[in-house]
Amino acid sequence: MSGNGKRIGQETGLSRGPALPRRKCRGPSRLGPALAVGLAVAGFLLLLPDRALAAVGEETQFVLNSFSFLIWGALVMWMCAGFTMLESGSVRTKNASVICLKNIGLYSIAGLMFYLVGYNIMYVGVDEGGWFGTLTLFYGTTGEEMKLLDAADDAAKAAAAGAVVDNGYSTMSDWFFQMVFVATTASIVSGTLAERVKLWSFLLFITVLTAIIYPIIGSWTWGGGWLNAMGFQDFAGSTIVHSTGGWAALAGALVVGARKNKFRADGSVKVTPPSNVPAVTLGVFILWLGWFGFNGGSQLALSGAVDAVAISNILANTNLAAAAGVIAAMAISRPVLGRVDLLASLNGAIGGLVAITAGPDIVEHYWAVVIGGVGGAIVVLGMKLLDRLKIDDVVGAVPAHLFAGVWGTLAVCIAAGADLGVQIVGILAIGAFVFVASWVVWWVIDKGIGARVTPITEELGQDVAELGIEAYPEFVVVPDMDD
Amino acid sequence: MSGNGKRIGQETGLSRGPALPRRKCRGPSRLGPALAVGLAVAGFLLLLPDRALAAVGEETQFVLNSFSFLIWGALVMWMCAGFTMLESGSVRTKNASVICLKNIGLYSIAGLMFYLVGYNIMYVGVDEGGWFGTLTLFYGTTGEEMKLLDAADDAAKAAAAGAVVDNGYSTMSDWFFQMVFVATTASIVSGTLAERVKLWSFLLFITVLTAIIYPIIGSWTWGGGWLNAMGFQDFAGSTIVHSTGGWAALAGALVVGARKNKFRADGSVKVTPPSNVPAVTLGVFILWLGWFGFNGGSQLALSGAVDAVAISNILANTNLAAAAGVIAAMAISRPVLGRVDLLASLNGAIGGLVAITAGPDIVEHYWAVVIGGVGGAIVVLGMKLLDRLKIDDVVGAVPAHLFAGVWGTLAVCIAAGADLGVQIVGILAIGAFVFVASWVVWWVIDKGIGARVTPITEELGQDVAELGIEAYPEFVVVPDMDD
Amino acid sequence: MSGNGKRIGQETGLSRGPALPRRKCRGPSRLGPALAVGLAVAGFLLLLPDRALAAVGEETQFVLNSFSFLIWGALVMWMCAGFTMLESGSVRTKNASVICLKNIGLYSIAGLMFYLVGYNIMYVGVDEGGWFGTLTLFYGTTGEEMKLLDAADDAAKAAAAGAVVDNGYSTMSDWFFQMVFVATTASIVSGTLAERVKLWSFLLFITVLTAIIYPIIGSWTWGGGWLNAMGFQDFAGSTIVHSTGGWAALAGALVVGARKNKFRADGSVKVTPPSNVPAVTLGVFILWLGWFGFNGGSQLALSGAVDAVAISNILANTNLAAAAGVIAAMAISRPVLGRVDLLASLNGAIGGLVAITAGPDIVEHYWAVVIGGVGGAIVVLGMKLLDRLKIDDVVGAVPAHLFAGVWGTLAVCIAAGADLGVQIVGILAIGAFVFVASWVVWWVIDKGIGARVTPITEELGQDVAELGIEAYPEFVVVPDMDD
Repeated sequence: MSGNGKRIGQETGLSRGPALPRRKCRGPSRLGPALAVGLAVAGFLLLLPDRALAAVGEETQFVLNSFSFLIWGALVMWMCAGFTMLESGSVRTKNASVICLKNIGLYSIAGLMFYLVGYNIMYVGVDEGGWFGTLTLFYGTTGEEMKLLDAADDAAKAAAAGAVVDNGYSTMSDWFFQMVFVATTASIVSGTLAERVKLWSFLLFITVLTAIIYPIIGSWTWGGGWLNAMGFQDFAGSTIVHSTGGWAALAGALVVGARKNKFRADGSVKVTPPSNVPAVTLGVFILWLGWFGFNGGSQLALSGAVDAVAISNILANTNLAAAAGVIAAMAISRPVLGRVDLLASLNGAIGGLVAITAGPDIVEHYWAVVIGGVGGAIVVLGMKLLDRLKIDDVVGAVPAHLFAGVWGTLAVCIAAGADLGVQIVGILAIGAFVFVASWVVWWVIDKGIGARVTPITEELGQDVAELGIEAYPEFVVVPDMDD
Repeated sequence: MSGNGKRIGQETGLSRGPALPRRKCRGPSRLGPALAVGLAVAGFLLLLPDRALAAVGEETQFVLNSFSFLIWGALVMWMCAGFTMLESGSVRTKNASVICLKNIGLYSIAGLMFYLVGYNIMYVGVDEGGWFGTLTLFYGTTGEEMKLLDAADDAAKAAAAGAVVDNGYSTMSDWFFQMVFVATTASIVSGTLAERVKLWSFLLFITVLTAIIYPIIGSWTWGGGWLNAMGFQDFAGSTIVHSTGGWAALAGALVVGARKNKFRADGSVKVTPPSNVPAVTLGVFILWLGWFGFNGGSQLALSGAVDAVAISNILANTNLAAAAGVIAAMAISRPVLGRVDLLASLNGAIGGLVAITAGPDIVEHYWAVVIGGVGGAIVVLGMKLLDRLKIDDVVGAVPAHLFAGVWGTLAVCIAAGADLGVQIVGILAIGAFVFVASWVVWWVIDKGIGARVTPITEELGQDVAELGIEAYPEFVVVPDMDD
Repeated sequence: MSGNGKRIGQETGLSRGPALPRRKCRGPSRLGPALAVGLAVAGFLLLLPDRALAAVGEETQFVLNSFSFLIWGALVMWMCAGFTMLESGSVRTKNASVICLKNIGLYSIAGLMFYLVGYNIMYVGVDEGGWFGTLTLFYGTTGEEMKLLDAADDAAKAAAAGAVVDNGYSTMSDWFFQMVFVATTASIVSGTLAERVKLWSFLLFITVLTAIIYPIIGSWTWGGGWLNAMGFQDFAGSTIVHSTGGWAALAGALVVGARKNKFRADGSVKVTPPSNVPAVTLGVFILWLGWFGFNGGSQLALSGAVDAVAISNILANTNLAAAAGVIAAMAISRPVLGRVDLLASLNGAIGGLVAITAGPDIVEHYWAVVIGGVGGAIVVLGMKLLDRLKIDDVVGAVPAHLFAGVWGTLAVCIAAGADLGVQIVGILAIGAFVFVASWVVWWVIDKGIGARVTPITEELGQDVAELGIEAYPEFVVVPDMDD
């Protein structure tokens, strides 16, 4: 098992140890050199009557790797729709339009920022053991790829193909797959802070998060920086993506504060149930589907039997963990929350998914059941805990993404032999940086343009007071009583 | 045309006849042996100036077969979201939360049970002509695959790859694809029994259905058991998946009984229209999309031109049948139901899809139009029939999945030369076993913990009375009058 | 860059100039001949110690090309669900059921018509520079493919595979991909004309549009007809698909007229906000996801490094353009519409997507940002313009698909060197033909069975008055006041 994404083209060839390879792959394939030799041998053996394994050709590997990035990446993009449905169904009806706009806005901003500067900070020119990459604008198709596309005749094309194929995958397929991960991080924030954060303040924070904060974390780890050099393992991002989003959301929740009357003077907590349960459920199914791309695509290649086996294990584990998360959350919600809680059960799926994300490629699949089940339970307990701490998280994103993410990152030590000390260092370092940086940004925004809507806007709902567009204008709804 | 899934690695090489091969493939590819020879020849010919067909290499076949299982399987998983939307939009608003929880619960249980025992019963060690497989716990990655993943250096990897590639596809990719089919069967049951079955009783039944009942049916057919030995043809499961779900639902409907006042003392039938038509429509579109994976993936391989051609035909036929089902249902709903019925039209798509599922690989595509059109008509007539018989099926799942499934299984005789007698034996045997087994399980549940909610719960709605979570708490809804 | 889809198997090998190749591909691959030679060389070189590029084998190309058509095509099918959600959320609740039925009906009709006659008119036997193809019924699997599927033994299969593989992709994979494009065109019409067009009149128009009008436009361009011969460039159909749908919708809007009291006697415009904003948002996310298939699949191949690089660029550009469209529309909606308009922002995504569709394969990705941003702005301005012109377009489909489509088709001149004159000729010719033909069909329908519902039906809503099925029967809604 590998706990740190794909190690393609790593010179050392080691799959564990301090010089762990990068998520951004550099060479044709993990099996690349072996297959190049193997292929030559195979080609020769084919001429003999005896049968030999016909390996995957290099250009075929290139095509499959790139296609894999795109298809799995498209599924991850779909997760943004999942977050949108989950969140718009969870908020009061009076805030459902604004949360829709925030979500389509954050996905747009994430994509533009990661093109503008994010990818370069995260992946381009990160020193071995370094802290961030290059501060240059734009990322794009390489000159060699352009030469290939522009080749006037077939001979020129065949000549240009070599240099392109050597990269293992097309430049923008990798960019596309990495870009949708940034968007996921951003999506986590919108849910926690719903119903009270100003539209423009939120979008401003997202701009900083996706352009700078997340890419720096990414450079430490998948980009080949210092945490990667230490051996920190986080296959698809329990910490790198999900906890990062969770810390950013938590910082925002502290700066912005709870919704009015969520935590009453008498110590009771106002119940704020989802306004549209089928929408929330649809959102969770979308996330579950998208997660197959999130974890499966993080193998970062589809170039041979190793990848095919690994991705198959990943999808099976991802599904087992989510299923176990649902069942565990259903079971534990009864004693903890006093009833079989639908929302807790749905969030249990997400907790299970987040938890398995740090090591979805384990080969003993019962571990996926255990890891996911614990993840689901953590979400339920975490939702209770946040209420105790009077931290207002509208959709339970902090328990689901931060708490379960921490658990998942530690669980890699049990299920796949990661170094516990290193994992803890990674969790703390990333947590400290993201929380402090986010807190500062939220604080500046709050002092500047204000992070929070006015009390009257909150009372009336952001849809009417901030946007002027109701989510369900023809439906008669009961006014949300702010006590 | 083949009417029984994929025949990869079958020693006999026969595509029809009594010893029909298994859905669970065993060897590299249908074309495998031919290509191994062909490849050797091709490799040799490539050295000559004359051009020869460059066939798909064995490891490439392995990668494509596995990837195909995963991608199509992900689409089939998506069908669970489709059933959830269809069902939550079809029930009264007072029961919409519970149906959401039932659906995410059933998908979770199906996945865990199929990992725990289901797959082994269905596929592992089924004797040629036998009745079920092995009663062992857990299924998982093979030792050879672990060896490949753990290989310390490239030589070890290349050595280990051979044994893995010989299997034709990765172990868990096949598991994943088969697992989502179990979930589909379970989804059918929740719709029919909505609005009156207890949450825990339902989930208990689903546990038995997915752990034991469906896997036994699967072992008779795709697992290589006695019905397969007879030559029963059901490509992607008109009978094996859809009728099985329909019989289980029908047994439940008889044990649990109709909703209160659905069939009035005066002989009239209470109209219970969908509470959220756009949700139902979305559900049908999701199912339609997912069905491309359901039928396309049931080719069980993507290893060469044969598979590519077959899957293309399958997707085209699947779409033609669904389209014809819609149009036929729209047309026939006018004389039968007295109006152009939206629900009947939407169910017509499902009827068309179920009907084509037994033989979606026919090459004369007008047959797909005919089979699907008849399937759509059957759904409309079946909905009318169930009302006459006073059997309460909330979403029309029995007509859509059972009646159209029977038709589709028979239609393979017309369109693809299956043996009518054998098809009838298969339909009856599967129907008898599933119906009786399900009836017994429902009966035991009913005598034990009770299958049905109390009249007061039914009156108040399961959301409030059983779960304490309303689906649309802020929306003002008109109370459903139980007359 | 290529501005006109894929040029596979073109004898000339020219990528620009008057004899531009067809969207319907004819040979194995753009790199085909080169790779055949290259493969022979590579096979030989593999025997030498020095490493050479192992190219994609021919049968592998065939498999990947076909699979690519199917997967991307399935995503495009999914766009129909997107249009349905967008439209059902945009109309008054009293018309939501009918728009659902129209959408599932139009997708069904499009699929059947394209099988019956559409494909043959568009692609079969179009003379170089011609005006339409063959007026024969049905399209389907070739005899060579049947021979391959029916081959009794492996030798026969290997023999038959050659002729099939030479085609480059399976017949029905191509049909499937082209079919979903027709459906997209039809989907555009339903949105504009919602809330007042009779169900059956609408479906009748769709029958003509998908069977005849769209296929003729297709034959002029992708089918190899006169516009293709001139060098008209429209990679995935900004004009061919989206403007065609927009012109057909515009003609319908003029014949059918505006909704009652939409444009009041005093010159004011009645505000008709979406009745279900989350549904509209979901619809836009679905369309965004589906567009990856729409544009990515229009590369029409996945047979080597060139295709992999091109499709990666296409997906990146598609995403950048949509994101820029959202941000531009948000920004410009403030000065133009007086507020940050959610609907305009969502339509901005569609405007950006439509605009990039004519040339999504540009290699300088900032152009995608510019083209998409302008597309988003055009939608906002276009919505304002239609209101001024008193043309009633319920969802803003004419600005999003027609106006942005024209812009996108012209932008290919800037970003990819298309001939401005030729592009203008194409835009005008297609616009004139589609608008006039559609206007005549709508006029005939109106004079015959009537295109528009009665005033009382419009007042009561089509759901109750035309269909007898309310979309949200249990929800209390405020009646829409027709002033």
